[in-house]
Amino acid sequence: MVRVGVADTTFARVDMARYAIEAIQEIDPNAEIVRYTVPGIKDLPVAALRLIEEFGCDGVITLGWVGSSLTDKLSYVVASMGLILVQLKTRRHVIDVTVHEDEASSPEELRQIAIDRARKHARNLMMLLLEGPEALTPWAGKGLRQGRPDVGPIE
Amino acid sequence: MVRVGVADTTFARVDMARYAIEAIQEIDPNAEIVRYTVPGIKDLPVAALRLIEEFGCDGVITLGWVGSSLTDKLSYVVASMGLILVQLKTRRHVIDVTVHEDEASSPEELRQIAIDRARKHARNLMMLLLEGPEALTPWAGKGLRQGRPDVGPIE
Amino acid sequence: MVRVGVADTTFARVDMARYAIEAIQEIDPNAEIVRYTVPGIKDLPVAALRLIEEFGCDGVITLGWVGSSLTDKLSYVVASMGLILVQLKTRRHVIDVTVHEDEASSPEELRQIAIDRARKHARNLMMLLLEGPEALTPWAGKGLRQGRPDVGPIE
Amino acid sequence: MVRVGVADTTFARVDMARYAIEAIQEIDPNAEIVRYTVPGIKDLPVAALRLIEEFGCDGVITLGWVGSSLTDKLSYVVASMGLILVQLKTRRHVIDVTVHEDEASSPEELRQIAIDRARKHARNLMMLLLEGPEALTPWAGKGLRQGRPDVGPIE
Amino acid sequence: MVRVGVADTTFARVDMARYAIEAIQEIDPNAEIVRYTVPGIKDLPVAALRLIEEFGCDGVITLGWVGSSLTDKLSYVVASMGLILVQLKTRRHVIDVTVHEDEASSPEELRQIAIDRARKHARNLMMLLLEGPEALTPWAGKGLRQGRPDVGPIE
Repeated sequence: MVRVGVADTTFARVDMARYAIEAIQEIDPNAEIVRYTVPGIKDLPVAALRLIEEFGCDGVITLGWVGSSLTDKLSYVVASMGLILVQLKTRRHVIDVTVHEDEASSPEELRQIAIDRARKHARNLMMLLLEGPEALTPWAGKGLRQGRPDVGPIE
Repeated sequence: MVRVGVADTTFARVDMARYAIEAIQEIDPNAEIVRYTVPGIKDLPVAALRLIEEFGCDGVITLGWVGSSLTDKLSYVVASMGLILVQLKTRRHVIDVTVHEDEASSPEELRQIAIDRARKHARNLMMLLLEGPEALTPWAGKGLRQGRPDVGPIE
Repeated sequence: MVRVGVADTTFARVDMARYAIEAIQEIDPNAEIVRYTVPGIKDLPVAALRLIEEFGCDGVITLGWVGSSLTDKLSYVVASMGLILVQLKTRRHVIDVTVHEDEASSPEELRQIAIDRARKHARNLMMLLLEGPEALTPWAGKGLRQGRPDVGPIE
Repeated sequence: MVRVGVADTTFARVDMARYAIEAIQEIDPNAEIVRYTVPGIKDLPVAALRLIEEFGCDGVITLGWVGSSLTDKLSYVVASMGLILVQLKTRRHVIDVTVHEDEASSPEELRQIAIDRARKHARNLMMLLLEGPEALTPWAGKGLRQGRPDVGPIE
Repeated sequence: MVRVGVADTTFARVDMARYAIEAIQEIDPNAEIVRYTVPGIKDLPVAALRLIEEFGCDGVITLGWVGSSLTDKLSYVVASMGLILVQLKTRRHVIDVTVHEDEASSPEELRQIAIDRARKHARNLMMLLLEGPEALTPWAGKGLRQGRPDVGPIE
């Protein structure tokens, strides 16, 4: 049985974890979910590490929300670098989902992006966990997007 | 009994530690506080590490102050990256509170941000330390803010 | 017999792995290829690490695709830093190939860059794996380029 | 007896080490000084590490000089990140003093900044080494500055 | 006898290694040189690490060439960070020489910078390897430059 960590923040303006968990359970109703909520994105790396090393998760999805100031962007860099370090330390996938306030022109659009991205990346994580390194190979180079419609390959 | 590290700087223009300590003691009057003051934000990572590894703290709150020049922003990046490394090394939360001089238009506004942010993040740390990974889950995706009023979720 | 890891993404808009694998097999028809496909560039470091440590690869080529927004560029930084960490951890070459959407004026040009860069870097990796540290020395300082024609040395 | 490392560069345009050493010896005439001079700031991290691990220093002050180009600023980021890593590896303070050519309008002003910053940070290091984590606590949040006059707390 | 690693790239437009090796041998005709050529700057860290750990080098000089786009600058950051990590892992000097295409107005000027910088930094490395931490101390704060004439100290 697969155990999946879901780490999210109180800073986010959409409950992305709800959609990620739904998507996980659609793929595997027996998947065990472990939840970890932190204040902001810079707290996600240690949460992801603990989900793997203390709570025995096979993989983690983190759901971050990034403001539009320069400071927010710099915080994004360090949070994402931290999540890569967690992966190199544990050799487990931690799918780093972030929604950036500057990528949409309205709150509603941001909300749609957040929901779509959380769902699709939850499915990506499950495929990697259940089927391994070649699970996504049929879509390699296919221009898939999360949060927006796929752009497709360049023909 | 919980032992909480409070690391701050002489560079800051507000004694944020005072407000953080107040908030910690409101939540748990028996919490033991260990204090560490350094010159500036780049000195905070080693202080946080020592608070955990040498002084036995269960978690740390760091209180940084960031000038508005490009150099200050770059120092913010390396300091915050260092604090994430401390967390990954110790598997403890280090809540990285920073006030940026470019986020307010007057010193008084900056002071209010500093106080509010120190208090709210001290409470966040205590909840994580006392109640664990799901302590903040009721507020996941709720658009909480520290230093300013919450913006709330996108409905 | 050499075992080569090929890690790519579903985000990319060109199936660069196909061209990399062709180039590898032209140089060594007996080379064993291990494939790993992930959603985006930030997932490549853990894939590269697993290809080396779990799947026994002697070297890896990663094929990333980077959008043109600031967020994409920052993601590039952390992904590439992660790939360097993998190399320092394993002492194996991981050739980090990326195509950036802002480096061409049309999708077709981007496609040509992607194909050329994947092929040439696959050959670079094979030369390093098969012939060692001085394999590329005859071309040191010669202004070679991947994705575009060589610019040559300054005479 | 305390042993203090002083690492500096040939790139700098002021002999900051002279002023740092003076300040160290004013505080503790018995302090033992170990000197390490490198070409530029990116060479300081390994010098600081060796001063601690091979030469037995209890703490280090590094004296860097940063040009005004983007490349210089990026070199500053990696040098400072390296110095934080040294601190996390050794659990010793390494006070990272840098003077940036873009922070003054004349060479003479830059020189004054360099001297003042070297002196004050040498004192900060000595206080931390001799008196520990609360040595600087009376000045926490007091808006101290090195290189310029203190700005003081926001009242 | 000192063994020196020289790592360079096929991306560079000047054969800087030739000038670095000449300078090394002028200082110590018995110095043993180990050469490692890689495609680009992001491949230099693992080459430097292998030169030290597998080929027994006492120190390394890396000779990188950096384009003028934002992507090139970001690649510079990660390559240089990687070289600092190699130094912290091995406690050996790795002198990170880079020539940036945006620092000169003509190819010929770039070539002169490259040659001068490679030579001077090769001498710096040899002095550190042969004479230790105080070898360069007579020039501390003297405003030395590599690639251009020295600017001298501020009087």
